Amino acid sequence: MSDLHLLSPIGFRAAGVYTGIKRRHTNDVGLLICDSPASAAALFTTNKVFAAPVKIGRQHVASGKLRGVVLNSGNANACTGKQGEKDALRMCDLAAKVANAGRTDFLPSSTGIIGHHLPMEKVEHGILEASKNLGNSAEHALAFNDAILTTDTKRKVAAVQLKVGKNRIVLAGISKGAGMIGPRLGPPQATMLAYLTTDAQVAPTLLKKLMQQAADLSFNSVTIDDHASTNDTALILASGASGVRITSPRDTKLFADALVDVCESLAYQIAADGEGATKVICIKVDKAKSDADAKAIARAIANSPLVKCAMNGNDPNWGRIVSAAGMAGVAFNPDKCALKLSATPVFRKGTPVAFNPKLVSESLKSPEVWVHLTCNLGSGAATIWTCDLSKEYVTINADYHT
Amino acid sequence: MSDLHLLSPIGFRAAGVYTGIKRRHTNDVGLLICDSPASAAALFTTNKVFAAPVKIGRQHVASGKLRGVVLNSGNANACTGKQGEKDALRMCDLAAKVANAGRTDFLPSSTGIIGHHLPMEKVEHGILEASKNLGNSAEHALAFNDAILTTDTKRKVAAVQLKVGKNRIVLAGISKGAGMIGPRLGPPQATMLAYLTTDAQVAPTLLKKLMQQAADLSFNSVTIDDHASTNDTALILASGASGVRITSPRDTKLFADALVDVCESLAYQIAADGEGATKVICIKVDKAKSDADAKAIARAIANSPLVKCAMNGNDPNWGRIVSAAGMAGVAFNPDKCALKLSATPVFRKGTPVAFNPKLVSESLKSPEVWVHLTCNLGSGAATIWTCDLSKEYVTINADYHT
Repeated sequence: MSDLHLLSPIGFRAAGVYTGIKRRHTNDVGLLICDSPASAAALFTTNKVFAAPVKIGRQHVASGKLRGVVLNSGNANACTGKQGEKDALRMCDLAAKVANAGRTDFLPSSTGIIGHHLPMEKVEHGILEASKNLGNSAEHALAFNDAILTTDTKRKVAAVQLKVGKNRIVLAGISKGAGMIGPRLGPPQATMLAYLTTDAQVAPTLLKKLMQQAADLSFNSVTIDDHASTNDTALILASGASGVRITSPRDTKLFADALVDVCESLAYQIAADGEGATKVICIKVDKAKSDADAKAIARAIANSPLVKCAMNGNDPNWGRIVSAAGMAGVAFNPDKCALKLSATPVFRKGTPVAFNPKLVSESLKSPEVWVHLTCNLGSGAATIWTCDLSKEYVTINADYHT
Repeated sequence: MSDLHLLSPIGFRAAGVYTGIKRRHTNDVGLLICDSPASAAALFTTNKVFAAPVKIGRQHVASGKLRGVVLNSGNANACTGKQGEKDALRMCDLAAKVANAGRTDFLPSSTGIIGHHLPMEKVEHGILEASKNLGNSAEHALAFNDAILTTDTKRKVAAVQLKVGKNRIVLAGISKGAGMIGPRLGPPQATMLAYLTTDAQVAPTLLKKLMQQAADLSFNSVTIDDHASTNDTALILASGASGVRITSPRDTKLFADALVDVCESLAYQIAADGEGATKVICIKVDKAKSDADAKAIARAIANSPLVKCAMNGNDPNWGRIVSAAGMAGVAFNPDKCALKLSATPVFRKGTPVAFNPKLVSESLKSPEVWVHLTCNLGSGAATIWTCDLSKEYVTINADYHT
């Protein structure tokens, strides 16, 4: 899944440079260009407060075709009014010049502090420098990837090669996000940014449908702080450069499954790199009245600071989990449910199950912890990935100053 | 409001003793007895997972009459099945014996760890000891109050004297809650416990109506961790011992207003004593499309860990506030709104307002911080009280072990 050499499907060139927008000395301006118009589908934040690049990006991707992406980190260009829109368009203009294309051929993205105008001199200089460094290699893809990182401590990348008939296609993804992560990406949420590229040929309408399906099972199933960002964006570009067309139901299923796998891997990596996180908490809810109910229950558990702190302290305080489930606003009956913490039954049908707290506490020290709640009310199921809440989280977010 | 001598209206006797249920050496079993049957109205958690004492309490208060309250802290008697119900009833039986009344004349309450059976020997011993220490004084009321505290660092008490015609009545309230605080008390949330007593004579139906109105403006408007508890309970008992009947519209309004004042004071004190809190954050949202929309927006802001951490760091990072408002799921338009932080305009109609970050940061160091968001979409308004999110919060909740 993390075969780095697959990160750059054919038909794409990428670059990332450092211009000083971010205090942290990692790339902050990135450029991704497809050699010819690519099929494009994007999902954006459903927050009513959305950044200028999201507004512009929605317009530009509407045609189902794009030539690439131009982006910066360190500044979200959100809550910046008309000036913000002008700045986002200016980024597109400069990228278009590099690709010999039109401004509407580019999707702009920004991530970072909200409410500050973009330092356009740095951005413009960055795009120019990036244009001189474009290339089709894993190294180039990673340079682009680094340009979207903010409080991330790790890269989030995933890529697969698929055999379609006698041919092979590549599907690659990069993403960012460690804070302001509670995406609900819709046809129109964190700053979660994810960019997927493939050399397969896929019609824009199909691409959009598959992207929404994959996002619901991945990005929309990860929460760090439940705070939907103004800038969340997931974009997929299909260059078609492999010459392999995805049209038959069989190939479509193959491609759709691979897309889910790549997106799930990226989402999991986001949870694992959550601000201050020491572990991933996988919350599986099954036999709920419906899938939506299962997701609501899993989210209520995942977003409870009491549950997240208990996990940080390796405390099998399962009462916090059951009580969070009960306040999800959907059907739930403690007298019917069963709860396991890392495979150990702790509560069943309204009554505590005796367990060895020391052993369970020990199991909670794992970098991946499973909470498994069976509701026994129906056949709905969902899995949500989150992380624990640590003192380090507070340090990061109390000290990340304006 | 905190006239301690008013804490014990006539007609009531109270006591609190320490039995060792809590590790912390403060009272953990309390008894409150009304000399004659009191009008009673109670609101309980709307969590689908509710504790045994809540189940029993709902049944016992249904008659509109009670003789008192028997309670413990250190153990929530929640998720404890049939045994839990037996234990809650046993508490009522013992209290009833003291008051020469029936088991249904008592409302049981518990707060503490979820999923453990009550240590009944200690509880029984406690009720017996408390019965020997009953008295009508502020000292007795405070001993009872102390028996409901868990992670609280301060007492939350409020009392007023009202002139009704030529007579005077007293309305007193005590409450607890520092964690698992996100009450939505309904006709059927934290462990928030609040007990109000008055010597006025008020019909149970009127008492219930006034209690719900007051709770919506107070307990249901405070959130620390948005985690509705299994045990939340707000109870009011009217002994009638003053001989003053509340029936006329004028007297009812007088009493209702006083009830709101007392409950608001208690709710504010809960926010101020939130686990790890260094300040109270008052979030006022006005000119929203409706009161419900205003409350949803204020709650989304209050529950954002990013906002709460920024407040802990005295960081005027207002973008987190505006973006939280945008994900509340109700009508909101950043291009129409105006945001003030501690009276300083920081964002207006989609555009940042220049301000001195050092001065605003300085103002955020106050023990009471105001966030004022004007939506300009209607006439809805709401105020929510919360507190900041500190490293100390994580310490308390990662280390509060099972």
